[in-house]
Amino acid sequence: MRLATYDDGTSDGQLVVVSRDVRRAVDASAIAPNLLTAIRLWQSVEAQLRALSDRLDDDLVGDAVPFDPARCLAPLPRAPQWCDGSAFLNHGRLMDLAFDKPPIPDFDAVPVMYQGASDDFLGPQVDVPFVTEADGIDFEGEFGVIVDDVTMATPASACGGHIRLLVQINDWSLRAIGAREVRTGFGFLQAKPSTSFAPIAVTPDELGDAWREERVDMLLGIWRNGERIGAASGREMAFSFADLIAHAARTRRLTAGTIIGSGTVSNADRSVGSSCLAEIRASEMIDHGAARTPFLKFGDRVSMQALFADGRDGPFGRIDQTVVGAGERHESASPRSSGRSGM
Amino acid sequence: MRLATYDDGTSDGQLVVVSRDVRRAVDASAIAPNLLTAIRLWQSVEAQLRALSDRLDDDLVGDAVPFDPARCLAPLPRAPQWCDGSAFLNHGRLMDLAFDKPPIPDFDAVPVMYQGASDDFLGPQVDVPFVTEADGIDFEGEFGVIVDDVTMATPASACGGHIRLLVQINDWSLRAIGAREVRTGFGFLQAKPSTSFAPIAVTPDELGDAWREERVDMLLGIWRNGERIGAASGREMAFSFADLIAHAARTRRLTAGTIIGSGTVSNADRSVGSSCLAEIRASEMIDHGAARTPFLKFGDRVSMQALFADGRDGPFGRIDQTVVGAGERHESASPRSSGRSGM
Repeated sequence: MRLATYDDGTSDGQLVVVSRDVRRAVDASAIAPNLLTAIRLWQSVEAQLRALSDRLDDDLVGDAVPFDPARCLAPLPRAPQWCDGSAFLNHGRLMDLAFDKPPIPDFDAVPVMYQGASDDFLGPQVDVPFVTEADGIDFEGEFGVIVDDVTMATPASACGGHIRLLVQINDWSLRAIGAREVRTGFGFLQAKPSTSFAPIAVTPDELGDAWREERVDMLLGIWRNGERIGAASGREMAFSFADLIAHAARTRRLTAGTIIGSGTVSNADRSVGSSCLAEIRASEMIDHGAARTPFLKFGDRVSMQALFADGRDGPFGRIDQTVVGAGERHESASPRSSGRSGM
Repeated sequence: MRLATYDDGTSDGQLVVVSRDVRRAVDASAIAPNLLTAIRLWQSVEAQLRALSDRLDDDLVGDAVPFDPARCLAPLPRAPQWCDGSAFLNHGRLMDLAFDKPPIPDFDAVPVMYQGASDDFLGPQVDVPFVTEADGIDFEGEFGVIVDDVTMATPASACGGHIRLLVQINDWSLRAIGAREVRTGFGFLQAKPSTSFAPIAVTPDELGDAWREERVDMLLGIWRNGERIGAASGREMAFSFADLIAHAARTRRLTAGTIIGSGTVSNADRSVGSSCLAEIRASEMIDHGAARTPFLKFGDRVSMQALFADGRDGPFGRIDQTVVGAGERHESASPRSSGRSGM
């Protein structure tokens, strides 16, 4: 089942079900007004949503409309928590080099995770505002999961069953600030502005065999200004999403709608490219003694599309965004959270 | 004006106005259903709330009830963001010693701040569950502010005007985990379970002269099992709340209801005591070569009450909580968020 959120002027948006061929959508707000409510009430609404999805795929829904990703907010425009792991150890190793810092102790035994802001997620096609190019604007392609209620100290073996939906993420990062913040020990705050999401959240069964051992075994295609720079596999996570959920829930309960991220998808095989510029720059430091690839400039375009092993497009839809100066935002151009209101 | 949140079974609770003598309260949900909505609509509801507050203080409200802190949730049981600074440099210096780590670069020039979870705040009298005493259970007495909408990159000079309410906080901390997490550079996550709040959020004018230069010039009384262990002053912040808001908003907008914390209230004058056990232990390391004071055990009680310079109780009310094992929670004993539901 594929779910998306249309901008209807409210903070949480309007729930729609998307057809398997990604061509049509149908309003599902009669079942649950928005995705956050659907996650909270999952046990009681899942069957109705799946029935609607089946009717849509069988072309039996009278009021279906063409699916328009430009109308989409993030699947959850705001969430109770956003906890982002760093489960691809290759990324961690390269970032230690990029930030010129020693390795994290036990980074291969205990998941590393930071708490991000979760009140202002961005949809897949809105312009993304930044204060200055000097902050070192970068992207991070990731996969993530949305969970229902998880009790404090739930063991990893019981966490997989709490995964309700899978999502595809661009965790925008400011590297000049990150290099300073990682040294404080207090973690990333200014270095992590609003995070962007592909339009469609999917139930794990939509991935078929590509969802296994609580990992997304797909390639994450990454393009900068139309040039593909990466297609790394999500299977190389050192910790599964179940492990990451258990880590987040070790000393707190997670409320339904919490999003857990994989961290930047990154493979030891360098030939697959990278899901962020900082890794490319770190590799250039290794090979040439200095970074050559610049961070993003205003006007640069970043696109992300998950791909099955056979090259077919994945079910999350496409992130396709332009980096702009904070003063240059075009409020009316496309749906964005800043234009929304209400509860 | 003093505002509190009664547990009515909903996620955001019910807004009440509290009298200046803290003896009576009146339902304010006809003006705004809950405090989060009131903050969002502050410009249009403030005058009505103040008028109700004045009538309550003049004993002109027919349906006032005795104010009962045991019915209170946190003023905001959930908030869009919770960003906690570390503005008392004395605390930072002692924590570097406690965690056996080098000083944070530029810690006296750039505020240090971490992002905390904001979906599950605890009221002033509920038992607080922890998984194990071995995590090094500690408290941190703090002040904080609740802001309305703040645009990305707002300068500090314009941030003071966004402060709508002041709050008093216990930022529960797990020191055994914190010592590890601070070394990852990714910041505190497991080390920071749900945060507790005193029952009453107040407009800055309630503090009179004790609110100046965007700092709370009051003493924060701290008791462990009835023994007072600290009464440090909030005026010694190296960065004002306006500075901290500007830091948080440097690369993101803050949505109305965001809470910004001061960090542990701590003074260079050691005779005033401490607002957390880790500082006491660090001082013992300096004086005796080893820490003597243990962290908290299940059954220990922690109380916090802000005091004016003349010894009068401050307006926030009292935090008075018992530490319990996660399996020992008494769900029916007092209002807690885990018993709440709905949007």
